[in-house]
Amino acid sequence: MARVSQEHLDARRRQIIEGAARCFARDGFHGTSMQDVLKEVGLSAGAVYRYFSGKEDLIAAIAGEAVGGVRQAFEEAARVTPLPAPDVLIGRVARSLFDGAGREMGRQAYAGLIVQVWSETLRSERLAATLAEAFGGLRAAWTELVEVYRDMGLLTPEVSADHVARTLIATAQGFIAQLAMFGDAEPEALESGLRGLMSMDLQKIS
Amino acid sequence: MARVSQEHLDARRRQIIEGAARCFARDGFHGTSMQDVLKEVGLSAGAVYRYFSGKEDLIAAIAGEAVGGVRQAFEEAARVTPLPAPDVLIGRVARSLFDGAGREMGRQAYAGLIVQVWSETLRSERLAATLAEAFGGLRAAWTELVEVYRDMGLLTPEVSADHVARTLIATAQGFIAQLAMFGDAEPEALESGLRGLMSMDLQKIS
Repeated sequence: MARVSQEHLDARRRQIIEGAARCFARDGFHGTSMQDVLKEVGLSAGAVYRYFSGKEDLIAAIAGEAVGGVRQAFEEAARVTPLPAPDVLIGRVARSLFDGAGREMGRQAYAGLIVQVWSETLRSERLAATLAEAFGGLRAAWTELVEVYRDMGLLTPEVSADHVARTLIATAQGFIAQLAMFGDAEPEALESGLRGLMSMDLQKIS
Repeated sequence: MARVSQEHLDARRRQIIEGAARCFARDGFHGTSMQDVLKEVGLSAGAVYRYFSGKEDLIAAIAGEAVGGVRQAFEEAARVTPLPAPDVLIGRVARSLFDGAGREMGRQAYAGLIVQVWSETLRSERLAATLAEAFGGLRAAWTELVEVYRDMGLLTPEVSADHVARTLIATAQGFIAQLAMFGDAEPEALESGLRGLMSMDLQKIS
């Protein structure tokens, strides 16, 4: 009996996703055709369409992976005990994200792919739903973490944990945008910038 | 002698840009044709092509306006004396940005337009140059401001003003991304989140 192992199927699927991601990073979602993807991965249409029904499906798969990568990077960083300060945590998330999925295609290209997903979200209800669910999860998880920081005495009672969580996520999103567009945003700069910001003594100005 | 006033020319140009921006916000750069723009503004091709050579030219004009809007919002916010704390300043920039250019089409649509410009930057050298120049200027201006905060005693000597400046800009960029994708990012949440973050007592964790 001929047998195609799950391992083989997964590897083939991965090969297609990685090839498509290279095309998308280079030419954009709108500048890439399925023909380009077939050429890039060196497979027949039959082989590729067995896994993905079309470009929309490939974009959704890549967005899902990026979202999963962010979630995993965050969960791994937050699992460390003792819990590090927020700047160290954000730095770890950024490094883990780019060392993981971003390693093969390069940091800037990977960040560019994420920004393209954001932009595509505005047009695709499917992507919008995927991203909204992921953001909701991330926001809830960071809010919990901020409450842990509050329990540790780092934060006064009147501060909204949700606002702090969203601002922390925003610093990472902003760095992804800077990296995508200008190429010189290092996780180290984000970590040290955040630490500098948190060290500012607001008593002296308010 | 027939005379077309500069005022008339400017108003016509503005009418075209605003109509195109509505189209782009609704259907995306790639989902909008020049025909769509003509229909939206109710002008003939001859009238529109007198001002813009094509879609690329319109996108560049809109990106230039967005960039100019950000710069103006920042400069106005930074001109206030006495200089407010960074969270108040960022809140003012965000409000001024969305109260200005974003008023007509709505905050979320305007933020979506900005995210589309970011994405398009990856494909267009012209846009990339415009954005890089604007970001460079903003980064330098914020770095100067952070040095003012340092002079006021808010920041210790070893902190990199450039890193803090880029992180502050990143919070605003991240909020634009959240607003574009999820619609519920208010300048007030950014301001209070940033204030909460800056109020965190890092001594208790390091």
